[in-house]
Amino acid sequence: MRRPRCSSCRGVRPRSHVVGKVSSWIDLDSEDEQLRLDSEITLKQEIAWASHLSLQACLLPPPKRYSCGNYARCVNQILQGMSNMQLWLRIPLEKSELMEDDSTNAASKHPSEGTFDSWELWNSFRLLCEHHTQLSIALDILSSLPSINSLGRWFGEPVRCAILQTSSFLTNARGYPCLSKRHQKLVMGFFNHSIQIVLSGTSLHNVSQEISEDLLVGDNNNHLEGMPVHHALRPYLDYVAYLYQKMDPLPEQERFEIGYRDFLQSPLQPLMDNLEAQTYETFEKDTVKYSQELILLSVSGQYQRAISKALVDRVPDEAASTTKTVLMVVGAGRGPLVRASLQAAEETGRKLKVYAVEKNPNAVITLHSLVKLEGWESVVTIVSSDMRSWDAPEKADILVSELLGSFGDNELSPECLDGAQRFLKPDGISIPSSYTSFIQPITASKLYNDVKSHKDLANFETAYVVKLHRVARLASSQPVFTFNHPNYSSKNNNQRYKKLQFVIPADTGSALVHGFAGYFDATLYKDVHLGIEPSMATPNMFSWFPIFFPLRKPICVPPESPIEVHFWRCCGATKVWYEWCVTSPSPSAIHNSSGRSYWVGL
Amino acid sequence: MRRPRCSSCRGVRPRSHVVGKVSSWIDLDSEDEQLRLDSEITLKQEIAWASHLSLQACLLPPPKRYSCGNYARCVNQILQGMSNMQLWLRIPLEKSELMEDDSTNAASKHPSEGTFDSWELWNSFRLLCEHHTQLSIALDILSSLPSINSLGRWFGEPVRCAILQTSSFLTNARGYPCLSKRHQKLVMGFFNHSIQIVLSGTSLHNVSQEISEDLLVGDNNNHLEGMPVHHALRPYLDYVAYLYQKMDPLPEQERFEIGYRDFLQSPLQPLMDNLEAQTYETFEKDTVKYSQELILLSVSGQYQRAISKALVDRVPDEAASTTKTVLMVVGAGRGPLVRASLQAAEETGRKLKVYAVEKNPNAVITLHSLVKLEGWESVVTIVSSDMRSWDAPEKADILVSELLGSFGDNELSPECLDGAQRFLKPDGISIPSSYTSFIQPITASKLYNDVKSHKDLANFETAYVVKLHRVARLASSQPVFTFNHPNYSSKNNNQRYKKLQFVIPADTGSALVHGFAGYFDATLYKDVHLGIEPSMATPNMFSWFPIFFPLRKPICVPPESPIEVHFWRCCGATKVWYEWCVTSPSPSAIHNSSGRSYWVGL
Repeated sequence: MRRPRCSSCRGVRPRSHVVGKVSSWIDLDSEDEQLRLDSEITLKQEIAWASHLSLQACLLPPPKRYSCGNYARCVNQILQGMSNMQLWLRIPLEKSELMEDDSTNAASKHPSEGTFDSWELWNSFRLLCEHHTQLSIALDILSSLPSINSLGRWFGEPVRCAILQTSSFLTNARGYPCLSKRHQKLVMGFFNHSIQIVLSGTSLHNVSQEISEDLLVGDNNNHLEGMPVHHALRPYLDYVAYLYQKMDPLPEQERFEIGYRDFLQSPLQPLMDNLEAQTYETFEKDTVKYSQELILLSVSGQYQRAISKALVDRVPDEAASTTKTVLMVVGAGRGPLVRASLQAAEETGRKLKVYAVEKNPNAVITLHSLVKLEGWESVVTIVSSDMRSWDAPEKADILVSELLGSFGDNELSPECLDGAQRFLKPDGISIPSSYTSFIQPITASKLYNDVKSHKDLANFETAYVVKLHRVARLASSQPVFTFNHPNYSSKNNNQRYKKLQFVIPADTGSALVHGFAGYFDATLYKDVHLGIEPSMATPNMFSWFPIFFPLRKPICVPPESPIEVHFWRCCGATKVWYEWCVTSPSPSAIHNSSGRSYWVGL
Repeated sequence: MRRPRCSSCRGVRPRSHVVGKVSSWIDLDSEDEQLRLDSEITLKQEIAWASHLSLQACLLPPPKRYSCGNYARCVNQILQGMSNMQLWLRIPLEKSELMEDDSTNAASKHPSEGTFDSWELWNSFRLLCEHHTQLSIALDILSSLPSINSLGRWFGEPVRCAILQTSSFLTNARGYPCLSKRHQKLVMGFFNHSIQIVLSGTSLHNVSQEISEDLLVGDNNNHLEGMPVHHALRPYLDYVAYLYQKMDPLPEQERFEIGYRDFLQSPLQPLMDNLEAQTYETFEKDTVKYSQELILLSVSGQYQRAISKALVDRVPDEAASTTKTVLMVVGAGRGPLVRASLQAAEETGRKLKVYAVEKNPNAVITLHSLVKLEGWESVVTIVSSDMRSWDAPEKADILVSELLGSFGDNELSPECLDGAQRFLKPDGISIPSSYTSFIQPITASKLYNDVKSHKDLANFETAYVVKLHRVARLASSQPVFTFNHPNYSSKNNNQRYKKLQFVIPADTGSALVHGFAGYFDATLYKDVHLGIEPSMATPNMFSWFPIFFPLRKPICVPPESPIEVHFWRCCGATKVWYEWCVTSPSPSAIHNSSGRSYWVGL
């Protein structure tokens, strides 16, 4: 056991912790029994010593062959008995070439292919160790990089540091070390995911050691105190610091959301109980803390646009001054959609009569103040009632609602609007006119471990609202359930069933699916959309995070195997719930049968 | 919902229960949404009705396509809420041909292959339903049968009945229905596994209906009361009854063991605590109940043979009358090996001095009575002591022990004999001289469910002693750990690690591995063996059942994928334990890390 040498284990933040390094000769899967036994003793002794020194983590040498069952067994035993220390397994970031060791020994190759994919090595190791939370990855970045899709997988994994070899650096025109565009992009990705960069190797760029001051401003400056000015790797460090500073600042919305990243929240129960009050409080807090006004604008803005278009379609210019449109906002909350409606009327010069229906008495108080403050008394009637039971005095031309959850229908918008559409005129308009949920398979070690930490079935059968960050999105999202409003079909039924097939891009390699990210996209009116589906998301919107449907047992997907997924929306007398399962490449259990673990009350 | 028609649902035991039959038109995975919804309603109504009628089971029609996620989801929901009734899913016994439905619809074919294997259909369905104990199989036997290996898989599954179509029958020279040799063998297999035979279809053999009395003797006679003499399927029933009577009676040993079939027992802890007394009692009971004398003979007989050979090798004929051989029986128990030793001495004319070492005081009392009864006082010295601590007055020529567990070393024979070999002469002989454990992958739904019923991790990480019956042995067993005695190597160490690769015969198709069956084979002396490894088992031996190492999550094995398995024997200061895992085709967790769930105390 040696403490890390300066030349190999100094990172961007060298003083924040010391990381031990286990002897690299150990080979627990050698054919040589004596070497195997000696390796096991050494590994255990060195880690015990590191533990005694209270190191934060220990670097474990990369597995020397594909079949690393004995190494994993020994590390797993150590993990079972370890209190705080982390183990960082070194893994070369490599795909498609055989390891030197393996090329001479056909038997140790992966049986299904002639290629080498270090992600599979990691995956096998961590499955053997049951996703242990103290087992993480130190990625060795080599001079050539695998495909973008293949790299993407690592962002769903617990990568703690990326070790950049000096040999991976190129030389710029002035003789200084620099990185290829692809390496730069990867390093920026690491920065974004709080993955520490470690420089390793001997200096291969014999440049003068003047420090270019403008490369050392800001945060990074602090980390260099105490480092000899003429450290051989200084030019490399300077370059990495330069990349860090070159990054675009995070957009405001992203900065707001940093604290929410990968934090599992239970979805709302908007109809049942009195949860709404709580929710409003949460939103209230958000407004103060993150100036939510700005953000809500994008939601209200889209609604205003949609309402304007609907008003113009409904009332021709020549009738604008004589025709009064009856508009009902169902679930008016604190009033943003009432405001959007009135602004749309003003913008289009249409006359409006607004009913603001809200079942939450707390929100109704706020509504009354708002109407009084703005002087809307002649236009807006506030109705303190549940839209499902309200007896409307007249029928509406336009029904405006925002009852959408992260997964679209998951806060029971369909059931509410089915109830409310009875006071819509036969040719009336519902805004939104439709919404669709979307899912995509993801790798999400962190979320999986958080769900697992509850040690029960129910949490693995619950959908969570979560700001997804440390995840790998394995395939494009696909639509799941669509609801249209109003819906006068006699067979109207809010049960749904969808079978989907996802194909992971061939150059990704194998993958592990921990569950599915869910989104929605709503058509408010005609071409006006609102949603969080990544490829067409409304910008700058804080109101919805994605939803995460976990899998009780992660599914291994071999290269080019399609993933077949089933989703059901089931409706009972008192509740609505989802069930889900995977049938290919291997069947999972059906999750949340009969809504036993997770449901939304009617 | 109809009660089964006489022509289709009369089995060998028609009165023992009534089985409902769900409408066969239902198709829950149809592309036609209305048909899907109607099917779901019908299925739920019919099963509710059957439940109301307290039927024992309901036959479910076979899934109409490979992808049967919605059918499984609906059945799973029903199973969650069902009290007693069984659901028997009809599955055609078929491999390698496309289903009629699927041939017209390429999309519903199994993605990885052009073939159809109904076992995969079942496997997918039951994995979706989480191995629910009330979900079983009704196998439809067709006129052509898949390969023997492929058929074998079904014997590890919960098959409740086999439905023989009249069209599967051939016609014999006299015009009567009969079955092909392969069908006959299969039906015998069903009898052996208590799988009920059901005859179905219309009569295709127009034979006169005189009842051949000699086909109706015995048990089957009872089941025919109340059936009209001229029932159209009578000739088929007669033939099946004839097959039943033609079966060889079970060997005595198998009859003894029927009550133990597929019943999980915890393995012994022979060294720790006072478990031995209990064990002896169990054996005592067995002796009375099953005339165990006869059976123990085969163990003692092998020992006698081995001891005879060792005595002759050790003492030449010319020295027989002058040389006295010192023989120690360590773990003498109630004395069978003492008797075997004395009989070997008598048989070979060698002179013997016997020390019978036993640590269990109860057994020592029995030993004293035996020695007195037989008049062995001058030859046999009884030592009431633990062999690991006994201070022997002289060194032995031959050390005889029987400390083997079902998995050979699992009752710590290696540790005991390492302790005992210090009082063996340097050229002394140990009987046994070596032993080897064996494992093979098996499908064992019943055992898996029994382990799962404990709802904890520990039971999935425990090896059980069990008389395996309803299992499918997927590949030949392979050796795991070998121990030789005496062992004077300075590096002597009873830790072991073995990596094995099993290849399931290609014509088997896919398979599900619930765990591993374990056996042992011991070399007592030279060519005298003793063991339970199926291919070379000592006949008529009741002393050991196999051992079963479960997997926490069954592993799906695609056709022709090798299974890579790792087994460790780990030794700590106070205990010995096994760890095990699978790394191919997909990695399992490492089971029983650090012996957290299952271990044998030193």
